[in-house]
Amino acid sequence: MAPNLEPLFSARARLLKASDVRELLKYSQDPTVISFGGGLPSPEAFPVEDLRVIFEELLHEDNTPALQYGPTPGDPLLKNALATMLASRGIPAKADQIIVTHGAQQALELFGRVFLDPGDIAMVTQPTYLGIFTALSIYQPTYHGVPTDNEGILPDVLEENLQALAMDRIQPKFLYIVPTFHNPTGVTTSLRRRRALVDLAAEYEIPIIEDDPYYDVRFEGDPVPPIASLDKEGWVIYLGSFSKVLAPGFRVGFAHGPADLMGKMALAKQGVDLFTNGFGQRVAERYLSLGLMKKHLPRIRKLYRRKRDVMLATMKETWPDNAEWTRPLGGLFLWATVDPTIDTKALLPRAAQKGVIYVAGHGFYAGQPEVNHMRLNFSFPSDPNIRKGIGILGEALREEKGAPPLLVPMAK
Amino acid sequence: MAPNLEPLFSARARLLKASDVRELLKYSQDPTVISFGGGLPSPEAFPVEDLRVIFEELLHEDNTPALQYGPTPGDPLLKNALATMLASRGIPAKADQIIVTHGAQQALELFGRVFLDPGDIAMVTQPTYLGIFTALSIYQPTYHGVPTDNEGILPDVLEENLQALAMDRIQPKFLYIVPTFHNPTGVTTSLRRRRALVDLAAEYEIPIIEDDPYYDVRFEGDPVPPIASLDKEGWVIYLGSFSKVLAPGFRVGFAHGPADLMGKMALAKQGVDLFTNGFGQRVAERYLSLGLMKKHLPRIRKLYRRKRDVMLATMKETWPDNAEWTRPLGGLFLWATVDPTIDTKALLPRAAQKGVIYVAGHGFYAGQPEVNHMRLNFSFPSDPNIRKGIGILGEALREEKGAPPLLVPMAK
Repeated sequence: MAPNLEPLFSARARLLKASDVRELLKYSQDPTVISFGGGLPSPEAFPVEDLRVIFEELLHEDNTPALQYGPTPGDPLLKNALATMLASRGIPAKADQIIVTHGAQQALELFGRVFLDPGDIAMVTQPTYLGIFTALSIYQPTYHGVPTDNEGILPDVLEENLQALAMDRIQPKFLYIVPTFHNPTGVTTSLRRRRALVDLAAEYEIPIIEDDPYYDVRFEGDPVPPIASLDKEGWVIYLGSFSKVLAPGFRVGFAHGPADLMGKMALAKQGVDLFTNGFGQRVAERYLSLGLMKKHLPRIRKLYRRKRDVMLATMKETWPDNAEWTRPLGGLFLWATVDPTIDTKALLPRAAQKGVIYVAGHGFYAGQPEVNHMRLNFSFPSDPNIRKGIGILGEALREEKGAPPLLVPMAK
Repeated sequence: MAPNLEPLFSARARLLKASDVRELLKYSQDPTVISFGGGLPSPEAFPVEDLRVIFEELLHEDNTPALQYGPTPGDPLLKNALATMLASRGIPAKADQIIVTHGAQQALELFGRVFLDPGDIAMVTQPTYLGIFTALSIYQPTYHGVPTDNEGILPDVLEENLQALAMDRIQPKFLYIVPTFHNPTGVTTSLRRRRALVDLAAEYEIPIIEDDPYYDVRFEGDPVPPIASLDKEGWVIYLGSFSKVLAPGFRVGFAHGPADLMGKMALAKQGVDLFTNGFGQRVAERYLSLGLMKKHLPRIRKLYRRKRDVMLATMKETWPDNAEWTRPLGGLFLWATVDPTIDTKALLPRAAQKGVIYVAGHGFYAGQPEVNHMRLNFSFPSDPNIRKGIGILGEALREEKGAPPLLVPMAK
């Protein structure tokens, strides 16, 4: 009989709450359930042959530095390779402006640590990546949601909000945004609006945290310049990750921003985990420096484009007329809006029973959520499972409305 | 010109302070400096051939799960392998009582998060592993130091302290201890005192965090049972790491304790970094399950035993008479006590100039430090460098006292 430690827990521990996505991982380990839930890359997208080459190189290095302890801000070789990559995105970067983290998620947590006192305002898009809430919530910010549409965040509304806050002499600590192939909506913020964001950041002196894990996962169209590349003053902090373009299992992400801030984050990271796993860092470095990533990306893009198209086609074929969805030009997700009388969170257990899961839109909102959305991941499931699972969801949506089931046979 | 973000920083950010050891890593990247500083394993101790076998296996697994996202508490296969390993140490463990972390350091940080409100008491040995301070300090505990001697922590003094706190109705949140080949002193807490700790934990209802990264790095004598193995009530939380027996670059540690506590820590970890890098976890799992660790450990032990002996012999030969040091039976460190008029922190820059670094004892104390200690790592430097570096330190200690330099030539 274990002792009850709960009386010893901190007040903070009582604020801890599981994210909807992490909880879904339980189901997604069941191979019979078709998961549109997590943002898992397809195993087909992993560059296994490249990794074989890289591993062999790393085991041959003098003193195998990939296996040793390393400095907290990151492997100097990787930071150099990242600086080159950032330059190619129009972001001039020096090594001391970069910190390597255990996924971009860790960078979010470190921002909370460095920026937020209880009650401070953290601005997010509405909806937003839900990991920002699990990262920041123990720091007890007040979230301030800024609405979005099919062109991304609404800068006019943001400006009104910033003005109102300034009138009350309240300084928000930062704005967090995923401008490219947004998680959860798949929407890309337009260049025009990105420019507006940069102007507002400088005018209201508010850092923008630009989280850009999907930059290289574009299926069509030209890249839109990162917000950080438009910023001449240094208000934009830029985050990236190797989870979608190499593999999540190495857990390597990074942040770029003013050297003072990066130094503070490195100090914070020291106490948290000393340094980011050196093996994964050196794998990422080789993947970049040997030009393997550049060679591999077309394969990922082609694969995910096809999967997106299968999902879009099946939705068109099998979903009720009053459902809508985005058509992302890249990334891993699309965002469906269903009949306003359907609560997607209430629907989820029934869908799971039919063998399909997704993430209900609720968790992506600060404050009162819209209840009739779902985030659908198309990168992980196989083509037949996308067809089957989307068909099942279409049927579930019809049943929910008391509508008759589809009579035409489901696409195979 | 980057903007000044400092006015936006949290009050917490102002508490951040670099650990002495992490700062030393800067020097230790300079190959001309002989470092007795960090707790770096020798590159010779890395099981490179085993890793080649493991990597090839992991790249052949169906869907390469080592590269994919995984559940927050840890890879189920690794948790099973850890449960088996813990059982072999006399600790009956179930998978849901284990969480895998980015090094044991991350587990320390999660304890702070889950247990500590500002002003809460965290008990530590005096001296203690200094990473406990960088892990916990943002949670603003009051540290309470319990003295140690050559047999480890002093349970009688601990009991007096616990009694006094109980009289004041103050409940300390936990006692943190490295009982085996203690960092920094190298001392192993005796079985008798371990039993006394278990009794005190149950009597005063205080969790003990037993940090045991060096358990398998024993050069001589029989293993002393972990405190957790003596505990029938569940007050002892047990931490381990693969950094010293496999490689730090994979950044894999773990904690074992009551399922409720582990669940709370997993919730906390969700927001921090989602999960521990899956590649490193699966490497650790194979290293255990294929019996490779068991086969490899004798090589590590033999290597470090030799290095310890070289260090001890050179100290005996070259150090001033009034210096003393511990003779650890395992681990990575020994602890030197020099002339009480010498401040080892003041000596450090002069030693660095002569080409040798170590960690001054100061950082290992809660509150007022003793100033005439140094922690010396023997696992990383080569045998010739141990001889040379220890000789230089001996000379520096003599100079510090105005004593004449050694006239006999230094051992080669």
